[in-house]
Amino acid sequence: MDRVAIYPGTFDPITRGHVDIIERAGQLFDKIIVVIAVNSKKTCLFTEDERLEMAVESCKFIKNVEVDLHRGLTVDYAKKVNATAIVRGIRAISDYEYEFQIALMNRKLYPEANTIFLLPHENYTYLNSSIIREIARYKQDVSEFVTEIVEKKLKEKFL
Amino acid sequence: MDRVAIYPGTFDPITRGHVDIIERAGQLFDKIIVVIAVNSKKTCLFTEDERLEMAVESCKFIKNVEVDLHRGLTVDYAKKVNATAIVRGIRAISDYEYEFQIALMNRKLYPEANTIFLLPHENYTYLNSSIIREIARYKQDVSEFVTEIVEKKLKEKFL
Amino acid sequence: MDRVAIYPGTFDPITRGHVDIIERAGQLFDKIIVVIAVNSKKTCLFTEDERLEMAVESCKFIKNVEVDLHRGLTVDYAKKVNATAIVRGIRAISDYEYEFQIALMNRKLYPEANTIFLLPHENYTYLNSSIIREIARYKQDVSEFVTEIVEKKLKEKFL
Amino acid sequence: MDRVAIYPGTFDPITRGHVDIIERAGQLFDKIIVVIAVNSKKTCLFTEDERLEMAVESCKFIKNVEVDLHRGLTVDYAKKVNATAIVRGIRAISDYEYEFQIALMNRKLYPEANTIFLLPHENYTYLNSSIIREIARYKQDVSEFVTEIVEKKLKEKFL
Amino acid sequence: MDRVAIYPGTFDPITRGHVDIIERAGQLFDKIIVVIAVNSKKTCLFTEDERLEMAVESCKFIKNVEVDLHRGLTVDYAKKVNATAIVRGIRAISDYEYEFQIALMNRKLYPEANTIFLLPHENYTYLNSSIIREIARYKQDVSEFVTEIVEKKLKEKFL
Amino acid sequence: MDRVAIYPGTFDPITRGHVDIIERAGQLFDKIIVVIAVNSKKTCLFTEDERLEMAVESCKFIKNVEVDLHRGLTVDYAKKVNATAIVRGIRAISDYEYEFQIALMNRKLYPEANTIFLLPHENYTYLNSSIIREIARYKQDVSEFVTEIVEKKLKEKFL
Repeated sequence: MDRVAIYPGTFDPITRGHVDIIERAGQLFDKIIVVIAVNSKKTCLFTEDERLEMAVESCKFIKNVEVDLHRGLTVDYAKKVNATAIVRGIRAISDYEYEFQIALMNRKLYPEANTIFLLPHENYTYLNSSIIREIARYKQDVSEFVTEIVEKKLKEKFL
Repeated sequence: MDRVAIYPGTFDPITRGHVDIIERAGQLFDKIIVVIAVNSKKTCLFTEDERLEMAVESCKFIKNVEVDLHRGLTVDYAKKVNATAIVRGIRAISDYEYEFQIALMNRKLYPEANTIFLLPHENYTYLNSSIIREIARYKQDVSEFVTEIVEKKLKEKFL
Repeated sequence: MDRVAIYPGTFDPITRGHVDIIERAGQLFDKIIVVIAVNSKKTCLFTEDERLEMAVESCKFIKNVEVDLHRGLTVDYAKKVNATAIVRGIRAISDYEYEFQIALMNRKLYPEANTIFLLPHENYTYLNSSIIREIARYKQDVSEFVTEIVEKKLKEKFL
Repeated sequence: MDRVAIYPGTFDPITRGHVDIIERAGQLFDKIIVVIAVNSKKTCLFTEDERLEMAVESCKFIKNVEVDLHRGLTVDYAKKVNATAIVRGIRAISDYEYEFQIALMNRKLYPEANTIFLLPHENYTYLNSSIIREIARYKQDVSEFVTEIVEKKLKEKFL
Repeated sequence: MDRVAIYPGTFDPITRGHVDIIERAGQLFDKIIVVIAVNSKKTCLFTEDERLEMAVESCKFIKNVEVDLHRGLTVDYAKKVNATAIVRGIRAISDYEYEFQIALMNRKLYPEANTIFLLPHENYTYLNSSIIREIARYKQDVSEFVTEIVEKKLKEKFL
Repeated sequence: MDRVAIYPGTFDPITRGHVDIIERAGQLFDKIIVVIAVNSKKTCLFTEDERLEMAVESCKFIKNVEVDLHRGLTVDYAKKVNATAIVRGIRAISDYEYEFQIALMNRKLYPEANTIFLLPHENYTYLNSSIIREIARYKQDVSEFVTEIVEKKLKEKFL
């Protein structure tokens, strides 16, 4: 039986820290699905399609990865694909607190999938999408933090 | 002399975790008043009257509890009722940090009332009102997390 | 019915931070019992009798306080005196983590008593008994951190 | 290719919280090896053989588990069995801090294995072996926290 | 060579906790520049000019301080003035987590300036600008928390 | 007037993370003194003289650094050299908690010196002396974590 893990998030945009986590998860499971949350309430810099395109392109070197869009609860997607695990990257303690609550609730709603926490490479400790957006807005070089396609898309947004 | 404690919050809506704290506080003090914050800036899912009704109904099995609405600072309400204690439930460390600051400021403004922190039952660790609203929005079963009246009201909101 | 709270600890020696907590707890309950842990494994600077004497003397201005020695689990003492609450002072987050585990376990063993957490005055944030012992060892003035009797006893230990 | 995970620890003694983590890890990997650290510096209540026996007996209902003793660094064991993952249970934030450092160092020493963090069932939040030893010392009932064999062995230790 | 440090923030309004940090930083460096962030996205209670005026007036007793407005990334300002250090006050652990990420990113973007963290006086632990605004809104006395000019300006805002 | 900072610690042994902090502090102050604590209670792997020799050798490329041994309270040393600052590296939140208490107490005892916290390079997040000792004990390569002289001394200890 193949083991599938999902990696949910907003990915607005995907960073090298995300890609690092996806690659690690790809070694642990037979398939890893990047699930991009489509949330009508949250205002994103990039459209759903842009976020999907950037994620697909950034992860194309990982052979057992898929990328998908999803509207609704994470556990509903987990059920649909019979996921064994929900993957979350942890950079900092304060991340973890919030993640802890979400993970316990998700387990309550769908006990078949356990949330597992992975550490990104320590060089990505400081990375998150909102810092990237802020840096790009002021035209600083972001090539160290995101893949080429994301760098290009950020430049187009902040012409 | 009777000792009165207040339990301030938004209660949008009240959860079983809140009720658990209220019941514990009811054993420690002669009277516990649930003080629902009416804050013009914050957008709530439920109206003041709905939040009041749900809290009253959910706590009716606790005999020394009262529920009230309050606009303004918590300490002003504490003064008005000569409260001995301000009760706060602590689920997680990150809660505590913020609560710590509020508690110290409240003590500065009204030293007569000490803030006391209580732990809800460990089964309610993951519970908070915003997660409940999110789950109800997607029509998942919330009966384990909220009382019957709240479950009913949530269903009406997200028809 | 009178409500009794216990405040367990090693008190090696009692500090002004401890006394501050005891005074606050004294306002919340009808009686507060300071329970000094007698633990054969832990090496203390002061003997049981010295710790008792210092605690009694330091708290004599609080009228509804008692001080006692206890060998064994905290919950056994709580049962013996029908305690309603177990009081703990929280200075820092890392305190809280450990306290959280102890509190949940104590509640499992004796659900009749809830652990309540109180904040000492912010001037006592940095205070703990081991720092006091270290300072006294090097003959620094400790009068701001401990009561007179403790200051005197510390001087005798580190002649 | 089979994926092997290891779960290192002292297990002095194994608790129901440990067993819960082992069971979850068993669903994520093809084989999970419980690696009991044999450390000459640390004083344990139980001998190596007792800890091994209790772990084997407590996990016998999980079919893809093995238990082993190991002297030395965790990563050396991970290399020996070509482990894909090092499993750690996280109950509290302060656990996590220390675990974070160990995990980063282990990854430095053996990048082939990623450390993954799992949450035990929330009913085991307060559980750790040292609290269990303390409770058993004072003859409290520990059957809710440990398996039958551990309960029996603890009773023998504290006759 | 003179060493310059910058202290970036929103200062909406400046509090006695901020002034305490500025005074401490003034002892460590030859010049300390208070850099008020002008951010078009964030809605402030006070205008840029009001925040500047209050900061200048509140710090006028510190002789090696300057106050400036800045639109853009903090590191761009640090480069412009050849800053040796970026000063941040830390009140609480949760502050620190976020500050940690920002500091690592700033170091990546401009390694010449190190972020240094200072502790404000423990009496200002509970202070932050948003609590001050909330208290002033309900006409409580804020003279203990802010300087005279800020108290006056707050009164004018909430007539 | 020259500004002197001290960097107190056990340095058993000094790591590349320590050296990184010393180098950063050297850019902030005119002189930085590495103060090696000589504490009769704590058992160290290396003697005072060995720790001194390793620190001197590891920092010899930093021109404004001195290394010294000190028995007693840190603040006594700070007074003796008229230190402006006490430097501490922060890797993790749990470090910070403990450091916070020490810093507040030190400021109480000697207000002339402020404690400043610096972040080591993110590659040294996982480094601490006790992990290094553990790794060296099992003959793993430690050259990435410590300077050459420390590597050599560790090999001699664990022949």
